[in-house]
Formats: sequence, structure tokens, C-alpha cells
Amino acid sequence: MTTQTTTHDLSDGRESQLLSIARQLFARKGYDATSLRDIAEAAQITKAALYYYFPNKDTLYERVVIESMAALLSEVQLAVARAHTPTEKVRAFLRASAESMEQRRDQWVAGSNAFWQAGATGRRGLALQHRDDYEHLLRQCIADGITSGELRPVNPAIAGRLLLSGLNQMARWHRPGGDLRANEVIDQYLDIVLMGLINRAGPPAIPPGP
Amino acid sequence: MTTQTTTHDLSDGRESQLLSIARQLFARKGYDATSLRDIAEAAQITKAALYYYFPNKDTLYERVVIESMAALLSEVQLAVARAHTPTEKVRAFLRASAESMEQRRDQWVAGSNAFWQAGATGRRGLALQHRDDYEHLLRQCIADGITSGELRPVNPAIAGRLLLSGLNQMARWHRPGGDLRANEVIDQYLDIVLMGLINRAGPPAIPPGP
Repeated sequence: MTTQTTTHDLSDGRESQLLSIARQLFARKGYDATSLRDIAEAAQITKAALYYYFPNKDTLYERVVIESMAALLSEVQLAVARAHTPTEKVRAFLRASAESMEQRRDQWVAGSNAFWQAGATGRRGLALQHRDDYEHLLRQCIADGITSGELRPVNPAIAGRLLLSGLNQMARWHRPGGDLRANEVIDQYLDIVLMGLINRAGPPAIPPGP
Repeated sequence: MTTQTTTHDLSDGRESQLLSIARQLFARKGYDATSLRDIAEAAQITKAALYYYFPNKDTLYERVVIESMAALLSEVQLAVARAHTPTEKVRAFLRASAESMEQRRDQWVAGSNAFWQAGATGRRGLALQHRDDYEHLLRQCIADGITSGELRPVNPAIAGRLLLSGLNQMARWHRPGGDLRANEVIDQYLDIVLMGLINRAGPPAIPPGP
């Protein structure tokens, strides 16, 4: 056994393939309802061969959720760093997230479902940290906007939660190839949240009677 | 066998008790991971006795989801009917929903989880109808607000989805007894959506230099 195989080097194509299969199954059936046997069968390998890469389901859970969160986090960090004003940073954060959801839907759904699933509390320290960093970044952009005077003094945590709720629920109802792309939905959400629904121009003129 | 027992009269206390146990288990473990045996054991009855009320899991799914959606729908319909302007109706709809979530959390989580779960597509016609009626009512309130000039001409379906996303995600993170009651979170969401985040008063005065 070489050093390379014992450390499960990320360049190992077989491992990537197994992770991809696990994501698909977790996204389709849910984490709890997917067994290591299901994954081995889908990959057409023996359970023993699968154990070599993932000795138990917890390991796989960590890898799927952590990889998902880490990729998302680095994408939004990059997008936010490139934007200039706090409002633009909020927009960049949500757009990068929607892009990530659209491009890697299995990963998103598997990560999101597994993450919230009751009982999966044992080994999720790093995933939790990534999620906290992700949520904190959005709150910080909102808080910066309040400090600069661009945004009203709302609770940044609550405003962030509303936007992330809109994003996360999209994994449940939004289908690629539908009327609106994920980015277009997010743009409409941002328009509503940033501008509000209230019509400050006053009601339209009363139409003439019959 | 009497007519009463074959129709499973709603006044039957045993049936209510079994539904309550099913809701708790579905909310805690998820619909897929809960077996009829789990429910029979929790209720301390035989599987045969359980079958008398619920011949299979689909029946129970329908009853849990349909009961949950029907109760919610009639509550929001009442709240909306009592409010006067479209904006007040939107507010009443969301507040009644938050109240329902807070008071019957198991029912909400069980209904929400089971509803979205992949594979549960066979027998959910009536539950789907309730959900459509529920979503449609909110959209109609928003559309009425746009027609009356109270609200900006946004897409009512997208604005409704954003508010319902905020509401639905609360079942994942909001805990009774925390800093904010469900109603208080919803009030802040409504404030953000109805007024927007953008500060129209302009930035604060530049603070004096050091």
C-alpha cells in the first residue's frame, strides 16, 4: 500500500467517481435511505472495494457535505471580493450561489438534505463551520450596507435568512429548463428585497367609469 | 362492522391518537424512514390493529399531509377574509401560517417533509390541491395589491414564493423558546419584503474626521 492510496489523494479518479454516485443517490433518495450497498451496486464494485475509500457512511457524509460547502464558500468569497459596494456584494453572493446550485444540482441537494437531516449530528464540525462562514459573509455584506447608509437598519441576520431561504427552497421547486433560470429567480428576489413591494409612487389614476 | 367504523369517523379518538403518533414520527425520522411497525410500537398496539385504521402507509401519508394542509388552508382563508386591504391580507396570511407552524410543529414538519419527498407521487392529488389553493391565495392577495396600486408590479408568483420560502425554511432553523417567536420573524420578513432594504433617506451624514 503506497502513501498515495492511504491518503486517498484527491487526484484519485475512482474516489471522485464514487463521490459523484453518492451525491446522486443522496440527492434522489435522501442520505438516510441510501446504504453503502446501494452506492457499491451503482458503482458496480464490491462493498469491500467501497470500504477501502469510505469505511463508513459518516465518512461519505462528511465528504459530500464538506466538499459541497467548501466549493460553494470559495465561489461566493471570490464573487463578493470582486464586487464593489455592499449592495453589489449581496447581489454577487446570491448570484454565485444560484449559479452553483444550477451547475451542481446533485451536490447542492445532497448537501442541503443531509445537512439538515435529524440525527446527523456526530461528525459535522467542519461542514457546520463552512455553513457558518457562508451565512456570516452574507450578513456582513448586509451589515456593511447598513453602516454605509445604502441599506435600511434591518436585522442583517434576518435579512440574510430570508434571502438564503429563497435560495435553498429553490432546490425543491425550481427545475432546470423551466420558464426562469435560477439566476433570473434570484434577480427577482433581490429586486423585491432590495426595493420592497410597496409602491411609493402612489396608486394609479382611477380609471374612468363606464 | 358498523357504518361508523368502516367510514373511520373523525370523532374516533383512537384514530386521532394514531395520527398524532404518526406525525411525531414522520417529523422526527422522516416519512420514508418510518414504518407501520414503528407507529404500532409507539402506540402500543398490534400491527393488525393499526391496519384496521390505516391499511397501508399511503393512507397515512394522505391523512397526515391532507389534514395538515386542510387545517392550514382554512386558517389562512379565515385570516385573509378578516383583513381589509391587500397588504393587510398578505400580512394576515403569513401571520396565520406562522401561528399554525408554531402551534402544530410536528404536523407542519411531517406534512412539509413528506410532501416534498421524492417518490411519494402516487396518491397526493388532494394534498396537491390544498397546497395549490394555499399558494394561489397568497398570490391573489399580492396581485390584488398590484391592481389597487398598493404594491409595485412585481411577479406575484415570485414574490409569494419568496415569502413562503422564508416561512417553510423556518421549520428547519427556528426553535420555539428562542430569541424570536415565529410571528416576530415573519413580521421582520414582511417588513423587508414590503418596504425593501434600500435606504431612500440617503446615507447618514459623514461623521467628523479624527
